[in-house]
Amino acid sequence: MREYNVAILGATGAVGTRMIDQLEKSSIPVKNVKFLASSRSAGKVLQFKGQDVVVEETTPEVFDDVDIVLASAGGAASKKFLPEAVKRGAVAVDNTSAFRMDSEVPLVVPEVNEQAIYDHKGIIANPNCSTIQMVVALQPIKEVAGLKQVIVSTYQAGSGAGQMAIKELDNEAQQHLDGKPMTAEIFPVKGEKKHYPLAFNLLPQIDVFEEDGSTHEEWKMVHETKKIMSGDMNSDEIKVNATCVRVPVVIGHGESVFFEVEDPSKLDTKKVQELIKNGKGLVLQDDPANQIYPQPIDAEGHTETFVGRVREDPENPGSYNMWVVADNLLKGAAANTVQIAEKLVEHDLVHVPDEYYGK
Amino acid sequence: MREYNVAILGATGAVGTRMIDQLEKSSIPVKNVKFLASSRSAGKVLQFKGQDVVVEETTPEVFDDVDIVLASAGGAASKKFLPEAVKRGAVAVDNTSAFRMDSEVPLVVPEVNEQAIYDHKGIIANPNCSTIQMVVALQPIKEVAGLKQVIVSTYQAGSGAGQMAIKELDNEAQQHLDGKPMTAEIFPVKGEKKHYPLAFNLLPQIDVFEEDGSTHEEWKMVHETKKIMSGDMNSDEIKVNATCVRVPVVIGHGESVFFEVEDPSKLDTKKVQELIKNGKGLVLQDDPANQIYPQPIDAEGHTETFVGRVREDPENPGSYNMWVVADNLLKGAAANTVQIAEKLVEHDLVHVPDEYYGK
Repeated sequence: MREYNVAILGATGAVGTRMIDQLEKSSIPVKNVKFLASSRSAGKVLQFKGQDVVVEETTPEVFDDVDIVLASAGGAASKKFLPEAVKRGAVAVDNTSAFRMDSEVPLVVPEVNEQAIYDHKGIIANPNCSTIQMVVALQPIKEVAGLKQVIVSTYQAGSGAGQMAIKELDNEAQQHLDGKPMTAEIFPVKGEKKHYPLAFNLLPQIDVFEEDGSTHEEWKMVHETKKIMSGDMNSDEIKVNATCVRVPVVIGHGESVFFEVEDPSKLDTKKVQELIKNGKGLVLQDDPANQIYPQPIDAEGHTETFVGRVREDPENPGSYNMWVVADNLLKGAAANTVQIAEKLVEHDLVHVPDEYYGK
Repeated sequence: MREYNVAILGATGAVGTRMIDQLEKSSIPVKNVKFLASSRSAGKVLQFKGQDVVVEETTPEVFDDVDIVLASAGGAASKKFLPEAVKRGAVAVDNTSAFRMDSEVPLVVPEVNEQAIYDHKGIIANPNCSTIQMVVALQPIKEVAGLKQVIVSTYQAGSGAGQMAIKELDNEAQQHLDGKPMTAEIFPVKGEKKHYPLAFNLLPQIDVFEEDGSTHEEWKMVHETKKIMSGDMNSDEIKVNATCVRVPVVIGHGESVFFEVEDPSKLDTKKVQELIKNGKGLVLQDDPANQIYPQPIDAEGHTETFVGRVREDPENPGSYNMWVVADNLLKGAAANTVQIAEKLVEHDLVHVPDEYYGK
């Protein structure tokens, strides 16, 4: 059995530490691991399966003997280092937005478009957290009745902005409880001009604004969904409308999803619930009489996507509402990335083709 | 000039104390006030325009010389006492859901259907908090282009569940920050079997569940909007689809509103922004380039409804998104109630007709 040298780029971050954990639990036969980070974090000691691993500074050369790279160190690091890793024979699964819209890079959620990994040229992209949980929930419905349009409003947790953002949210909450003014330096977006508190507040801005008044996070949900579900980021097969809002939750994104199917005759509320119940990577939590519905504090630490509050719109037959929750750092990031790597191993796709990315 | 004796029923609650404040600031010539509550709160001393007022226990007889009742002591108290007050010649504005769907009771948001107050039979109902801010934002758009349908997802603050709920949210947040398990006794709904923490969490249940899987809060948003905007709680003029979610915010509801107009030719994004800017009770906060958009912490303490993130859906011409925020205890409750009373005074409607409610 082939064993793999695996490198985790951004190993010390909120997603990176979870990638380590997911890799330990995965079916991937790991020969050796490398934990990579910026020079600032180099020298730190982390653990892998009980063994100490010293974090190394990322350079092109560290990828010389690496088979699989799992990357979550920001778009700039991925753009700089992943082509170097591929050139050296590694296959990279990238959790940043650097390559998602590149037509040469498959954008993959295994439950939805696993087959796309066969076309990789060395880099496979992991979608945005909010996109992943939505398409996992929509896929079994699309398979049976087709999808005409999706209108989604997100309730996104602070941890989506990284480890420092989690601390900021906690600090702000404590300031508020102590009757002090809240101070903000990260939310809504680290690099932006203005910062606002998230604790006990709502911020209808995630990522920067586009020319058309949408945010880049909303743009991602629209175009990533099209690329994953219809194979083309500009496909008009499924209309997607997204509003993304940051909420004072630490871990676990919520999504209020309204969707309209192509063939209403194929479904009713019970059938949608049944499809979710039997769907890949999905857990149905939908029992209003017993107050059972998905909540972020229950989803935290789990790799599945949780769905409840399923109901048909009485004024729009063939249209439904559902409430979708997942751990944004796991299924929204680390778990989906490792799952893609598992599929690469399973289908013996851990090799760079002759016409590799960036050649 | 006629002066009025005004009674506030539920004067010690989160909404009641704000009704006192709004009444002080109102244009209503007040002769005398009575602050009413349950026997538990009777004897407490509150202030009105600098004078001490002792809270009295509510009985039918206390309404003998009252002209205007402002009620927010729960549905049961309103059902019990408001017909008694009307029988004694008082006109009541009720902030509970007790009479909202009664065909003999106008349901009023002054910016939208002020004229409905002329039909009162002694009781006028104040809508649900989440309904009010949405219809205020939609009204100028409806006037110009008509409304075909609305799909709304709410982000509702904890204070909507009352004064004790605010304390519970704070306690839970402190427990979480101290690394202790969170304890819940009120959320999502005080009288329900199960309780879940709201701090750092999301609860897709507000009020109890209906047979069809929607919550009563969602039912209210659908049918109150129809009654206010189309004159009939079951009107099919405007389709309304609502998902209501409680979020860990103290004051200020957010709403992600998607709406489709009857006549797309009348509007574009700029025109919608202009209508909001000039709309009654509305403030436009929509400047993405300068990160200007409505936030609960900015709306707190204000009586206006704040709107931003206006944008047309490129895949659905004639459909728009907007983000609507208001102080749920003010425009969503106390301020709208006092505003209705001001309109009753302004139009000389503070008298009970011969065929009064419950006669």
